[in-house]
Amino acid sequence: MAVRVAVAGASGYAGGELLRLLLAHPGVEIGALTGNSNAGESLGALQPHLLPLADRVLEPTTPEVLAGHDVVFLALPHGRSAEVAERLGDRVLVVDMGADFRLADATDWERFYGTPHAGTWPYGLPELPGARAALEGSRRVAVPGCYPTAVTLALFPAYAAGIAEPEAVVVAASGTSGAGKALKPHLLGAEVIGSMSPYGVGGGHRHTPEMAQNLGAVAGEPVTVSFTPTLAPMSRGILATCSAKARPGTTAEDVRAAYRKAYADEPFVHLLPEGRWPATASVQGSNAVQVQVAHDPAAGRVIAVSAIDNLTKGTAGGAVQSMNIALGLPEETGLPTVGLAP
Amino acid sequence: MAVRVAVAGASGYAGGELLRLLLAHPGVEIGALTGNSNAGESLGALQPHLLPLADRVLEPTTPEVLAGHDVVFLALPHGRSAEVAERLGDRVLVVDMGADFRLADATDWERFYGTPHAGTWPYGLPELPGARAALEGSRRVAVPGCYPTAVTLALFPAYAAGIAEPEAVVVAASGTSGAGKALKPHLLGAEVIGSMSPYGVGGGHRHTPEMAQNLGAVAGEPVTVSFTPTLAPMSRGILATCSAKARPGTTAEDVRAAYRKAYADEPFVHLLPEGRWPATASVQGSNAVQVQVAHDPAAGRVIAVSAIDNLTKGTAGGAVQSMNIALGLPEETGLPTVGLAP
Amino acid sequence: MAVRVAVAGASGYAGGELLRLLLAHPGVEIGALTGNSNAGESLGALQPHLLPLADRVLEPTTPEVLAGHDVVFLALPHGRSAEVAERLGDRVLVVDMGADFRLADATDWERFYGTPHAGTWPYGLPELPGARAALEGSRRVAVPGCYPTAVTLALFPAYAAGIAEPEAVVVAASGTSGAGKALKPHLLGAEVIGSMSPYGVGGGHRHTPEMAQNLGAVAGEPVTVSFTPTLAPMSRGILATCSAKARPGTTAEDVRAAYRKAYADEPFVHLLPEGRWPATASVQGSNAVQVQVAHDPAAGRVIAVSAIDNLTKGTAGGAVQSMNIALGLPEETGLPTVGLAP
Amino acid sequence: MAVRVAVAGASGYAGGELLRLLLAHPGVEIGALTGNSNAGESLGALQPHLLPLADRVLEPTTPEVLAGHDVVFLALPHGRSAEVAERLGDRVLVVDMGADFRLADATDWERFYGTPHAGTWPYGLPELPGARAALEGSRRVAVPGCYPTAVTLALFPAYAAGIAEPEAVVVAASGTSGAGKALKPHLLGAEVIGSMSPYGVGGGHRHTPEMAQNLGAVAGEPVTVSFTPTLAPMSRGILATCSAKARPGTTAEDVRAAYRKAYADEPFVHLLPEGRWPATASVQGSNAVQVQVAHDPAAGRVIAVSAIDNLTKGTAGGAVQSMNIALGLPEETGLPTVGLAP
Repeated sequence: MAVRVAVAGASGYAGGELLRLLLAHPGVEIGALTGNSNAGESLGALQPHLLPLADRVLEPTTPEVLAGHDVVFLALPHGRSAEVAERLGDRVLVVDMGADFRLADATDWERFYGTPHAGTWPYGLPELPGARAALEGSRRVAVPGCYPTAVTLALFPAYAAGIAEPEAVVVAASGTSGAGKALKPHLLGAEVIGSMSPYGVGGGHRHTPEMAQNLGAVAGEPVTVSFTPTLAPMSRGILATCSAKARPGTTAEDVRAAYRKAYADEPFVHLLPEGRWPATASVQGSNAVQVQVAHDPAAGRVIAVSAIDNLTKGTAGGAVQSMNIALGLPEETGLPTVGLAP
Repeated sequence: MAVRVAVAGASGYAGGELLRLLLAHPGVEIGALTGNSNAGESLGALQPHLLPLADRVLEPTTPEVLAGHDVVFLALPHGRSAEVAERLGDRVLVVDMGADFRLADATDWERFYGTPHAGTWPYGLPELPGARAALEGSRRVAVPGCYPTAVTLALFPAYAAGIAEPEAVVVAASGTSGAGKALKPHLLGAEVIGSMSPYGVGGGHRHTPEMAQNLGAVAGEPVTVSFTPTLAPMSRGILATCSAKARPGTTAEDVRAAYRKAYADEPFVHLLPEGRWPATASVQGSNAVQVQVAHDPAAGRVIAVSAIDNLTKGTAGGAVQSMNIALGLPEETGLPTVGLAP
Repeated sequence: MAVRVAVAGASGYAGGELLRLLLAHPGVEIGALTGNSNAGESLGALQPHLLPLADRVLEPTTPEVLAGHDVVFLALPHGRSAEVAERLGDRVLVVDMGADFRLADATDWERFYGTPHAGTWPYGLPELPGARAALEGSRRVAVPGCYPTAVTLALFPAYAAGIAEPEAVVVAASGTSGAGKALKPHLLGAEVIGSMSPYGVGGGHRHTPEMAQNLGAVAGEPVTVSFTPTLAPMSRGILATCSAKARPGTTAEDVRAAYRKAYADEPFVHLLPEGRWPATASVQGSNAVQVQVAHDPAAGRVIAVSAIDNLTKGTAGGAVQSMNIALGLPEETGLPTVGLAP
Repeated sequence: MAVRVAVAGASGYAGGELLRLLLAHPGVEIGALTGNSNAGESLGALQPHLLPLADRVLEPTTPEVLAGHDVVFLALPHGRSAEVAERLGDRVLVVDMGADFRLADATDWERFYGTPHAGTWPYGLPELPGARAALEGSRRVAVPGCYPTAVTLALFPAYAAGIAEPEAVVVAASGTSGAGKALKPHLLGAEVIGSMSPYGVGGGHRHTPEMAQNLGAVAGEPVTVSFTPTLAPMSRGILATCSAKARPGTTAEDVRAAYRKAYADEPFVHLLPEGRWPATASVQGSNAVQVQVAHDPAAGRVIAVSAIDNLTKGTAGGAVQSMNIALGLPEETGLPTVGLAP
């Protein structure tokens, strides 16, 4: 019997990608779709590619509208999920694609987000050690940020194997859908086409403490992350180039073994054959993750690179993957594993 | 029980897209994959996004390798399909993604392709009047060209309704995957990014007679097509902007009615609501077709625009759709109906 | 002695491109720069690439600010230029990059623009027969629209030579800078990258009557234009694919001769060698125009294609070219003739 | 009196960009243009945007053809410049845009390039301490690599000021023109559009020792560079994101002061106002460099980012800048200082 699903925040890129995936998911029935300023508009006007849902009208995001579903996905501005979840009760699976329940450290939360800390929910990155067990049967899921998904999957095997020093340096390139549908001059097509530029340089990006939290938990000691995001002239995709000093004595074979071990049984994460490197086009529209790693003996560093689709594995696909686990469905249900390249 | 499928020409863009779709098709089992100059190489090296098939090795394209399958897809250079098909026998469904069996007129064929005419097979554009009946149960299918798919779907309703004069003018923009993987200087990324340019201007493109054939068959009289293809800075997608003089007395409502009638029951073709226009991103990676139409009273013309993904509905998706019909499967099996936008 | 120049509307793409060109123009000194809602902001914040002017502060667009210059360029919303020009007096050269003084027909103006007709000024397309003479010494210039520049230069030689029927069909692709800096959802990078889509289909684009006016004046009879603009995933550039039925008896050599004659002595318009076709990258950032033409005997049409940079030859470069002529400077002063390809 | 210039290797992207700049340079006259496999072809076929030179025919790259010029630019495969230069004699200014004379360490050279070490010439990065003096009056110039230009300009002020530890981490994104016109499958437009991917990961890129050499010379001690280049979906531009641990006690003000001092008088390098970050579009087609710097106290690192056009400041523009210095011309002659944004 199909699970009945509501989506709060169906007009944005995350909501649209989620609906694209849910339309192809054999175990769900799409229920209420809500919006905020665009409640009352048809989905056909807001998400013209979602033709099977074109006649659906967005309802306001209220507990009444969201009630009566088995699963509620939240794609809301931060600070709003706690109240909505509380009203939905404990028997509904609430999957928060926002940031509210990702960070354990209240100080970090308040410094980066500026609102009161709401707490933490089981973290929807099943590939992290221990994460699947916490997700199974859970009725709350905090979906990771897109950059933390890419960076954590690139680096945690090195920390799990104890081969990397606890100071990571990350430069990531993201397609502009990562910035959402907000109307800002620097996101206009004429500005981003043909151009690369960084933002949030110097430690200011909100995803930084989430990366440090994930890697520190695996390392068993605090890990600092120097994180520089850049905007790339593409619609989708994150390429995360990550490195850390190698622990003394680390060999190229140690590095490779660490990643082989971490990803031997993962359905979505593909450690590429030696000599091949991730490309965001290869994972476009899919829940796949491409990972590759190298040891630079001259610089004494481990370099790990990952590619994901920021909207799929980085947001909506990761959310569906966690929903599948929480509901006891096969983890890959409804999720493309092959990207769109070219 | 799964149908066993072979793909001859698995290393190119058409073959890669076909395999992406077949991997998600619930009714097929992927058998032999063949190549020509790259026989002996692994698919992982040639199509790095097709990770579930990474260890498959391309075999040579011989009757022996292709024998023993229920369905054989051919993605071969033109002029080679006839011989391969003959050797496979009448019980195997042969779906030719090349041009060999598309044109009925031998003179047209020889003028545009320069090789002897091989004949015609049932034409794999199910939306054309009469096409589905010819495909049902057939063991041979000629998949249309990508441009003819887009242009025929944009214009045939106008000819079916008798509202357009038999002189069509078409300007189409295609992503560069339409040119295939051949290494030509003008297809380098540095050349195509940030640039639009036409090619084959003046009636020289090989898809021109195929469009004229399709539209003429519907119109019941010869239709000339002035066709100008252009190369657009995107990987995938065709936007076909088509027009013809309106027959005297044609009204805007006549135009709209013609298209509503043609596409009322089509699972993949979406006549957009008035005021909305096709966008190639909205159909990217899917078998969907977006169509819109307008009447320009000042210029006295009907203008119809369609958007498809050249590799999906324009090639591999159209091939799978026709395979489904030929085999008696539900027509939409294994085919995404929602594109990847953004 | 340098001519002193003011720019009203310096914060948009047209104003920015104009300033880029003026900075390299040996005969001008850049005076007042004005804005509307962003008066008081520094140019460094609004046009970060114009580093030599980064400390300039935008002033309000008033007659007082604009007074005291030899040349005033107007990049204002339509309907505002007449009043500003009147206040500046007859001795100041006013170059209007907006639409206000382009159309001679008041009915056309009011139907497409919805404001009272302001009149006409000498038309800043020097390549049109008779245009240079009207511009020499003039103190008023109406700079053409970007699409009319591309389309007129593609088609007028055919009408001048009497080889084309008076019904033109035009499909043009434009980079998204053509839509300006206005914040609209469909202009976001994530929407336009990887996508082509049409707009203003069916005769609604405001540039349509301007094309008809230009071509009709050359043809000596009314010319209808079926015009479909499309948005292409690039920042700059227009590729205009234009055609008309050939007059009976027209040969390929007639077609070529018509264009050779029209462009034999033009400094910026390059009729390409046979077999080569325009590419927008080849004219990027320059005032160059690439034109090529073909005769399609099967369809009985003349097909002419042009490529320009919409911001340079299509707006700011065309404005500077006309200023040079009006002031008696060599026509090419300060204008790049070679584009940026790749 | 104009200086007579020859270009050896005029058919590639570096040669084409050099000719674009030389066409606008008031002090040069363009003499012989040579090619290798394409000697005998017209430049119009190979560089269609260089219309003023369309009729020029490439000659073979021989001493006889190159003799009789005041300046000879070499854009040749590595290993070939020494012999050509020797034949030209000491009175001709030879500007090598290849790698042959960049590296002082013969072991580094042989390890990364595999041919015998040719020696070093004055290094054409005038902004480096001491470089201008070496270039003035010189008759030999080694133009830096594109990545080393971007990375050295981003990081040397930190080393000059003694505020950075000698272990730099660099991730740079380059437009695909950086890979040249060689026909390789991964450089096809369909592959690179919509995709980011790394290459040469783990210290293998040939530009790595050149960066270490430049930074080490400024630091007065060896500097290791962990360098990861990535291919971005754009034609031109390099964005280099560079960082190093800050020396203990370094403050944000120390960091800013170091860069203000380094770039106070540089005509092409623009240290951006605080809060603004480099964008490759802003320098496109120009010799400008945008630099910005930040201090991340949590990670304890200095982060410096630069943007250049790889073909202009990164190759041909840098070459012309050095030629100007060597010849005693004003350094900015013929070089655009404002990029093409958008």
